[in-house]
Amino acid sequence: MQNESTKKGWNIQPSKSATSTTNPIRELVDSGKYKPNPNKDMIPLSIGDPCVYGNLNVVQAVNDELIKNINSGKFNGYPPSIGYPAAREAIAKFCETPTSPLTTQDVVLASGASGAIEIALCALLNPGDNILLPKPGFSLYECICKNKGFGIKYYNLLPSKSWEADIEHLSSLIDDKTKVILINNPSNPCGSVYSKEHLNQILKVAEDNYLPIISDEIYAGMTFGDAQFYPIASLTTTVPILSIGGIAKRFLVPGWRVGWICIHDRNNIFAANNIQGAITVLSQIILGPNSLVQSILPTILDKNNQVIQKFFKDTNQTLEKHSNLTVDVLSKVSGLNPITSSGTMYQMVGIDSSKFKDISDDREFAIKLLNEESVFVLPGSLFGMNNFFRIVFCAPADKLEDAYQRIKTFCENHQK
Amino acid sequence: MQNESTKKGWNIQPSKSATSTTNPIRELVDSGKYKPNPNKDMIPLSIGDPCVYGNLNVVQAVNDELIKNINSGKFNGYPPSIGYPAAREAIAKFCETPTSPLTTQDVVLASGASGAIEIALCALLNPGDNILLPKPGFSLYECICKNKGFGIKYYNLLPSKSWEADIEHLSSLIDDKTKVILINNPSNPCGSVYSKEHLNQILKVAEDNYLPIISDEIYAGMTFGDAQFYPIASLTTTVPILSIGGIAKRFLVPGWRVGWICIHDRNNIFAANNIQGAITVLSQIILGPNSLVQSILPTILDKNNQVIQKFFKDTNQTLEKHSNLTVDVLSKVSGLNPITSSGTMYQMVGIDSSKFKDISDDREFAIKLLNEESVFVLPGSLFGMNNFFRIVFCAPADKLEDAYQRIKTFCENHQK
Ligand SMILES: Cc1ncc(COP(=O)(O)O)c(C=O)c1O
Ligand SMILES: Cc1ncc(COP(=O)(O)O)c(C=O)c1O
Repeated sequence: MQNESTKKGWNIQPSKSATSTTNPIRELVDSGKYKPNPNKDMIPLSIGDPCVYGNLNVVQAVNDELIKNINSGKFNGYPPSIGYPAAREAIAKFCETPTSPLTTQDVVLASGASGAIEIALCALLNPGDNILLPKPGFSLYECICKNKGFGIKYYNLLPSKSWEADIEHLSSLIDDKTKVILINNPSNPCGSVYSKEHLNQILKVAEDNYLPIISDEIYAGMTFGDAQFYPIASLTTTVPILSIGGIAKRFLVPGWRVGWICIHDRNNIFAANNIQGAITVLSQIILGPNSLVQSILPTILDKNNQVIQKFFKDTNQTLEKHSNLTVDVLSKVSGLNPITSSGTMYQMVGIDSSKFKDISDDREFAIKLLNEESVFVLPGSLFGMNNFFRIVFCAPADKLEDAYQRIKTFCENHQK
Repeated sequence: MQNESTKKGWNIQPSKSATSTTNPIRELVDSGKYKPNPNKDMIPLSIGDPCVYGNLNVVQAVNDELIKNINSGKFNGYPPSIGYPAAREAIAKFCETPTSPLTTQDVVLASGASGAIEIALCALLNPGDNILLPKPGFSLYECICKNKGFGIKYYNLLPSKSWEADIEHLSSLIDDKTKVILINNPSNPCGSVYSKEHLNQILKVAEDNYLPIISDEIYAGMTFGDAQFYPIASLTTTVPILSIGGIAKRFLVPGWRVGWICIHDRNNIFAANNIQGAITVLSQIILGPNSLVQSILPTILDKNNQVIQKFFKDTNQTLEKHSNLTVDVLSKVSGLNPITSSGTMYQMVGIDSSKFKDISDDREFAIKLLNEESVFVLPGSLFGMNNFFRIVFCAPADKLEDAYQRIKTFCENHQK
């Protein structure tokens, strides 16, 4: 009855999708070269997690709401895979603008912005298609695309223009297999916040080429000084947009794993081929994010909630101070060129290796800085940008000052 | 500079992976035929969610631990994508047996058992490979495989043998493209709990054909009377096993979305080709499940925690009573043949359509039952088993009694 097995022993191979999935940050940490100086306490400025030091905390009102809902016992069952209607409605109200209205139907929850990005990409791309990704950019985009067999074309962001996209370059990359333009605004790793004008330039490319945009706006509202964040969907009535958001960064709770997709489709271009249905069916694979955290969204995303609004403001002020501190100190260090951030929690710093006697690139900079000064920054090449490094400026100000003094000393020691 | 676009207008297509993903339960509910009788209150016995009626609740000690950890502020950051080490260790201790020891390294957390199953499948299969799935079986397996392009071969479970797998049939299906045998024990939708002997038969097929097993054990420990659950990994020293678990069902909190994979690999057969690495890299796409729920696992999975042990026992006793009630009533109804469950929260009931004048199959049975009596059960064909229907017996006993009386009336009304 049984087909003769031709196998003569155990030989279980991992799938191609898994072996083609790379995680550059993990590879770097695992490479073994990244060892701090045992005589100096370690200061990690590497991971995009505001909770590492304990100085940035979610406001207690959020915890209280969560606790209340836990004790109610009402939020333990399966929510719909796309999320509780009340949570979806709260997100719609939180994310909409007068020129980009949203309804409950336009929102799908996911397991973090990461899960939302995965669903958005998988809804729109087939293996062999390609997507335009920013360079430098968040490494998860590449990770997902490689896992799924989606082609990638990188468009350059220009440090000389506060990390705006090189629009000429962007449009030159488009071919018949291009299905999506992905932008990330405000940007990890750049800390840039795009102007209305620049977003309009990107929209024009999308419109001329009939391409939808996935806009990763997880850092929405995390801006400094005069910088203003514009949801790209608020600037177009034609280009269909999937905007990605989440509570990880703004509420300082990345471990809670709740993100979302807002579907902006005023001309029913997505609806014409039921992209909404594709997104819904994909959400059914892992059945959405934690129900308890979903249950607090109506309260914590309420724009009239003064406690939350103050919390946002306080967090932004702290981050802005840290950003200023970063640029103040590092701009005075010979060989370093910080590009001022307008938002997020990230700072990109250019490395002029001609100034150093024994540092040829950003990897060598980051390795030696860790080996000698126990300060851990990520080399820009991990984000596709050589000769830069990325700082996460969430650590307490005194830690940052200590770290930046060490970076200064390090640069002086290696100066030509 | 720009390539001429050949596109003349908007035409955004959903991906093939999304359009080939089906969700039979959703399709059924959306079909519009499923309308309750407006004059009778609705009794849904359809969804595998113990929280629907509010009679089955997680024990307060679990909530208290969660609240304590929320207030500590220590569990808001990103855990490692494979989970906190303490959570992984707690799962290892909870799931291991004397003959199937586990260490922290053998455990990977995921977003529900659903997320764990997705990762396990994606680590081991390429598009074009095939997997052996139980029929009847949980529809998510099929949903994921169709989404990823993995081939499916269904092996029969035999109602006449308490839903044991047809071993002859199982081995006859194996070909050179078969990569995995998946079993689900205790079973949704069957409520069966496999004996040691039967598990050994399945292991022999795996061993003879050098196939790893994915064992979905989300209902582990949810057994009635004398039935005993054996983790399949505890019965083999050779066959590599990925066993899937989670807190959804046992702790009555499916909305919390925490599951896991335990990697049983005593002969380093997975390790030889770094399947562990494949699983890890796949976990990095959505970065694991909620940190707060992870943080309570060391307490709630502690086998010495008497409060939890009692809670498990109480829940099983309630479910066992409901199971007995179900079989007692329905076995006396002409035309129905319930196959006694030994565990879980499910009951399969055979329909002898020769006894009915106007019910040709299980779909018609379920539609008419809902239309006339407002009792909602799922047709077995949704799980691949025609002429059965599935009952979820989590509702309070009085609701169940009401529902079963209505089913009795319904069957009498349609009797030949
Ligand atoms: C640009 C960007 N998008 C998405 C994410 C992932 O967010 P989440 O933690 O909600 O998955 C991050 C996290 O660092 C990010 O920087
Ligand atoms: C057999 C089986 N496996 C897995 C799951 C999914 O579990 P989770 O809610 O942890 O994703 C279910 C849920 O019904 C199930 O019945």
